[in-house]
Amino acid sequence: MSISCVAPHAQGKINKDRIFGASGAAQKRIKEIGAEKVTNATVGSILDDEEKFVVLPTVGKIYRSLKDTDIFSYAPIAGLGEFPRLVQEACFGASRPQGVYTDAVATAGGTGAIHHAIWNYTQPGETVITSDWYWGPYKVLCQDMNRELDTYTMLTEDQHFNLPGLTAKVREVLGRQDRVEIIINTPAHNPTGYSLTPEDVTGVLTMLEQSLAGTAKTAVVVLDVAYLDYGGEREAVRKVFRALDHLPENIFVLVAYSMSKSFSMYGVRCGALIGVSSSREQIEEFTNVNKVTCRATWSNCSRAAQSTLNIIYQDPALIDQIQEERNTYYRMIQRRGDLFTKEAAECGLKMVPYISGFFLSIPAKDSMAVCEKLHDDNIFCVPLAAGVRVAVCSVPLGKIKGMAAKIKKAMDACGE
Amino acid sequence: MSISCVAPHAQGKINKDRIFGASGAAQKRIKEIGAEKVTNATVGSILDDEEKFVVLPTVGKIYRSLKDTDIFSYAPIAGLGEFPRLVQEACFGASRPQGVYTDAVATAGGTGAIHHAIWNYTQPGETVITSDWYWGPYKVLCQDMNRELDTYTMLTEDQHFNLPGLTAKVREVLGRQDRVEIIINTPAHNPTGYSLTPEDVTGVLTMLEQSLAGTAKTAVVVLDVAYLDYGGEREAVRKVFRALDHLPENIFVLVAYSMSKSFSMYGVRCGALIGVSSSREQIEEFTNVNKVTCRATWSNCSRAAQSTLNIIYQDPALIDQIQEERNTYYRMIQRRGDLFTKEAAECGLKMVPYISGFFLSIPAKDSMAVCEKLHDDNIFCVPLAAGVRVAVCSVPLGKIKGMAAKIKKAMDACGE
Repeated sequence: MSISCVAPHAQGKINKDRIFGASGAAQKRIKEIGAEKVTNATVGSILDDEEKFVVLPTVGKIYRSLKDTDIFSYAPIAGLGEFPRLVQEACFGASRPQGVYTDAVATAGGTGAIHHAIWNYTQPGETVITSDWYWGPYKVLCQDMNRELDTYTMLTEDQHFNLPGLTAKVREVLGRQDRVEIIINTPAHNPTGYSLTPEDVTGVLTMLEQSLAGTAKTAVVVLDVAYLDYGGEREAVRKVFRALDHLPENIFVLVAYSMSKSFSMYGVRCGALIGVSSSREQIEEFTNVNKVTCRATWSNCSRAAQSTLNIIYQDPALIDQIQEERNTYYRMIQRRGDLFTKEAAECGLKMVPYISGFFLSIPAKDSMAVCEKLHDDNIFCVPLAAGVRVAVCSVPLGKIKGMAAKIKKAMDACGE
Repeated sequence: MSISCVAPHAQGKINKDRIFGASGAAQKRIKEIGAEKVTNATVGSILDDEEKFVVLPTVGKIYRSLKDTDIFSYAPIAGLGEFPRLVQEACFGASRPQGVYTDAVATAGGTGAIHHAIWNYTQPGETVITSDWYWGPYKVLCQDMNRELDTYTMLTEDQHFNLPGLTAKVREVLGRQDRVEIIINTPAHNPTGYSLTPEDVTGVLTMLEQSLAGTAKTAVVVLDVAYLDYGGEREAVRKVFRALDHLPENIFVLVAYSMSKSFSMYGVRCGALIGVSSSREQIEEFTNVNKVTCRATWSNCSRAAQSTLNIIYQDPALIDQIQEERNTYYRMIQRRGDLFTKEAAECGLKMVPYISGFFLSIPAKDSMAVCEKLHDDNIFCVPLAAGVRVAVCSVPLGKIKGMAAKIKKAMDACGE
């Protein structure tokens, strides 16, 4: 190109989205031979066992009953009415962290929450840490904001959370930075279905406290809980938030909450960034700083989404109802993941321990080759850097059956 | 605060929103004495002469007829289906610029479009130029992204577009930067209701071409057309886009399009950034670069908004219908603005020339004092740096009557 009017830091940026690529290949095959003969394990939203897109009935009903002003008017920047409080109810449930202050601002989906967590809590040039199995956009977000993403090995040899690996990475980064930010996607981690226990999270916080001791440095832990409502029993899975009780002042926790999965409102684009700190001043700063960035990025967020959450979370009967619905789909997905896991064990297919959630993963050196080989069997998965991602959220149980063996066959054929 | 976990560049950020502040004061008075006795000229959306929130009937009907998947599923990052093409139809109408390439990406409202225009087309530390009368968030966006906002005097003494003033500012900035970005809010400029003629825009582009001649520098013109459909007759007002025909390669035009006003979808949060360039490669780069920033900021945008636009703009009958509806409300607002203008002339109240649109403005040195004085008459306006903003979009004609004289009285009382 002879001339570019794009600023130097942005020139040549391009994102080859592996998920959209894989999804396109599946759609093409479906057109050729029909949906019933194709296993499309690329879709990251819930499809029922008839492969029909699932909207939680309570959400659909409330959403469609909203008045014009509850859909089309502007919402305030930080959130509509009681949204900042009620979204915390939706997130924390009975496990609101104790001995800390909290607040929330509405964001454009979970992605928007991660955006603010990086933008306001790290500096350009700094390194953000996540595990080696990670949701690809974390890297795109870091790169676009001129931050680095670095990883640690998520699991130990015996398949537990690798605190020593994270510790080493944190200390390496703190050796050259005044602050460290860690993104942890839990429960029901995308892309593996792994979850940290409350003790694991306590372990991370204790490690950070020790790593910061005697310094003026700070740490930020971002808990990306996008799959919270599909990670296990409603209150059991939320116990992890009690690990945030009485946080030290130099550790700030940001919870990235998404309505995409919990309300099946993927395309409505709403979520929240929740701040947790034992310092009231730091929480006030959290609200001020993130409101400015909302104003400066997208202004306000979907009024319809916030109206829907506000109506549901002010009515105990509706809360029970939506929890029941989530639970139905959680169990539907769990059956699929469990069947895959069982069959993987039977045929000797090595996978990352799946606990729950939308995705499971199979480690592979050349995941692209494996995914292409799978096309012979009309199976479509997403090739990630560390392996193959299978979206059990969208593959009916009948098609899960036999899938592990076919992936094993493809892995063998590719010399994995 | 003893410790802050916010990164240094973001510490202490706070936005005192004058619009929300003024709106809150109006709401308080309404509760005290009733809506019929209060003139609330702070609301930036259309209210009819019964002060009822207006949703364009065609938009309401289509939106409420959408299938679940057209609301709740994810949309693709750049836009849903034909959206990138159809949003250009909605924007350009019969005045699509000739001899140039164009493309569009969906954004989170018009604000999201301005965000990308600043983020990808300027560097940190650089100066962005806009007129002295400007929509306040331009400054918040620039500051949050570590850019400077500088201004030129928008109008000459004889109330024409001040090209000499802009020229001087452009040359000053090009004296220290390799590129210059100018944001022009037209037609129906927020906050004054002023519009540039097509000749004014041609003048800006010719001036830029001359200013860049013999250098390797570049210019970006951001046309913020948020009020396009309330700026005059449908095709007449769009003629400004033909000023972009055969752009020089070193001038890139970004059009920030918003569905907030044109579709009365303020709280649904959708718009588009449209790129215009005579270079095919630069347009490809535009799409790639901005898709990455979408991915890294909010992921995808409101599916319902895009579905609605796609349905309407694929059906000539629906296009005519929505244009008719916009025209009805354009005329309603115009009557209000014209009455205010007439009465202002009668009582000797000096105002910025109002042509059309949601807002008009009265220059004042201490706009805050004037606005507070107006509270005595139960009139609520927004105090801006350069004067008082009156939202004629939301004040019924009956309340406009006499308002200019009351503002004149308040101005006199404040020694303006």
